[in-house]
Amino acid sequence: MSQFGTRFFGHEWYRLRMTSSPLIIDNLQYANWSEKIFRQMHEGGVSAVHVTIAYHEQFRETVSNIEAWNRWFELYPELIFQGFTADDVKRAHSEGRTAIIFGFQNPSPMEDDIGLIEVLHRLGARFMQLSYNNQSLLATGCYEAEDPGITRFGKQAIAEMNRVGMVIDMSHSAERSTLEAIEISRRPIAITHANPHVWHPALRNKSHAVLSALTKAGGMLGFSLYPHHLKDGTDCTLESFCQAVADAASAYGAENLGIGSDLCQDQPDSVVEWMRNGRWTKVLDYGEGSASNAGFPDQPEWFSCNLHFGNISEGLSKIGFSSSEVDGIMGGNWLTFYEHAFQPEGA
Amino acid sequence: MSQFGTRFFGHEWYRLRMTSSPLIIDNLQYANWSEKIFRQMHEGGVSAVHVTIAYHEQFRETVSNIEAWNRWFELYPELIFQGFTADDVKRAHSEGRTAIIFGFQNPSPMEDDIGLIEVLHRLGARFMQLSYNNQSLLATGCYEAEDPGITRFGKQAIAEMNRVGMVIDMSHSAERSTLEAIEISRRPIAITHANPHVWHPALRNKSHAVLSALTKAGGMLGFSLYPHHLKDGTDCTLESFCQAVADAASAYGAENLGIGSDLCQDQPDSVVEWMRNGRWTKVLDYGEGSASNAGFPDQPEWFSCNLHFGNISEGLSKIGFSSSEVDGIMGGNWLTFYEHAFQPEGA
Repeated sequence: MSQFGTRFFGHEWYRLRMTSSPLIIDNLQYANWSEKIFRQMHEGGVSAVHVTIAYHEQFRETVSNIEAWNRWFELYPELIFQGFTADDVKRAHSEGRTAIIFGFQNPSPMEDDIGLIEVLHRLGARFMQLSYNNQSLLATGCYEAEDPGITRFGKQAIAEMNRVGMVIDMSHSAERSTLEAIEISRRPIAITHANPHVWHPALRNKSHAVLSALTKAGGMLGFSLYPHHLKDGTDCTLESFCQAVADAASAYGAENLGIGSDLCQDQPDSVVEWMRNGRWTKVLDYGEGSASNAGFPDQPEWFSCNLHFGNISEGLSKIGFSSSEVDGIMGGNWLTFYEHAFQPEGA
Repeated sequence: MSQFGTRFFGHEWYRLRMTSSPLIIDNLQYANWSEKIFRQMHEGGVSAVHVTIAYHEQFRETVSNIEAWNRWFELYPELIFQGFTADDVKRAHSEGRTAIIFGFQNPSPMEDDIGLIEVLHRLGARFMQLSYNNQSLLATGCYEAEDPGITRFGKQAIAEMNRVGMVIDMSHSAERSTLEAIEISRRPIAITHANPHVWHPALRNKSHAVLSALTKAGGMLGFSLYPHHLKDGTDCTLESFCQAVADAASAYGAENLGIGSDLCQDQPDSVVEWMRNGRWTKVLDYGEGSASNAGFPDQPEWFSCNLHFGNISEGLSKIGFSSSEVDGIMGGNWLTFYEHAFQPEGA
């Protein structure tokens, strides 16, 4: 009983502390999960994290990843729990815990079976990329030479994701496929983790055409803190990052912007190999890296873990955002998006 | 929009009709599901049915069966929806619909993986038999020559089912395994579909020792209407059936009794072959039947479909049950059981 006593005492203490703090949401992380990281989320006041639970995993492998998360939820209930709804995120905020929201960077968990979309939504999946770097059954990835757009299966999958309340994520998809997904989807979509191409012309960053169409349709852009997406990479300054956010806010509206840090904290380099190569190639693909720079790049010193969101909100204030705009970008905008996007259509 | 108009009009009409009708729950059916049967549930005023969605299916096959149900839920929302909680059953009753509650007659869907119990609970599984007729990884079935009791894995599975709120069902299990499951489980268990051995000494019916231990621990017995479980089989009279319920009420308390009809309406005989033989034998096993009587037996004429629950409640009244006892046996007792059994432990 003393364990419960401590836990509830902890909640109460954090509830008092947290309700006066703005709500922070990071809409993409893929860390090497541990109690240390869950404690950092807690101490950093992060109320929700959209976590990647599948890169190339098939359905059954994805379920095994869910089982691993269930074990963490059982072991660390004072720190984390599974989030299914916007209300869960509000509850996490009021209790000083972190709602963990599942998502996939590839449609591999649904295999070739449209019925799995609803099953996976029931299990908590709320974001699914229609393609990772390669062509998928649904759409084209940003590393393909040709982009024929959304496939026949892709159109059916978009309709089904719309119906059940699973968000279409085009972070790693190619230009035409992305524009078509925005057009075809009856509900706003997301680019959970990428930056404007105009700021840093990486292949993974997004064109004005994409960002304009995305946000005009009510979609969200999550700003990435992954060095390959940042101007000057690891040496990117906080000021430069915040200026990029400010420029995007001028172009597309601050209410359509949030954070999707792409934080891969504590991951060994074998994991970035898995992300890039899955089981599809015997010839090593370096993705955004190169043979001489194959591993995870170092994070900028002002954002390396969940304790550092305060640096970003300070930077955004300094660059001239109002306090309500800062609160929106740091979490409020994703929360509003969740409120509409996670429920079945018409609910 | 006219479709919705009709649907809500239908709801309203049935809500008025249904709220004055007692709540009926059938805690086991395995019909050849069709719109016809869903309409019979609706017209028969059945507020919840626990449906078998796996006999010998592995996890992925069970998920495919869930996908088929999801499609029915999408096609017939005015008739059925998935039930996860006792509140869902109350809502079904007030709306004149039927809550469909998933369960397994075998632990095959969880394979050898304890983490799948929580995943399957999330997908809606609320009952799981620890064994069908044979030895399983967890317990012994009633057709085995030896019953060594609950296995090492079985003890872990019981603890996990208790934790997440999945009911242990011992309908097809052997005597010692059943008594041990009742003893080991921290929460009441169920025998969803079987009858007292003293009334009809079939191998599948349950001894006084089992029924006494089951009900003393707060567990439920669902009376079966499957002819092989009935005295005089297809020719069993309604009076004989109701007398068996009355005798059980005297011995174990009316509040621990309900219906689990085992209705296999419209199934072809190939299905009873699957139920009995799965993939485990090349030599045909006839289970409760025989080579000369291998198929599904005919139902008694007073109970052959979901329109006939009124016959049973009338029979129970005639045999001397009070009207509140009849309401309990026809659904109220299962509803009370659901209220406690379907939630995670401590919730």
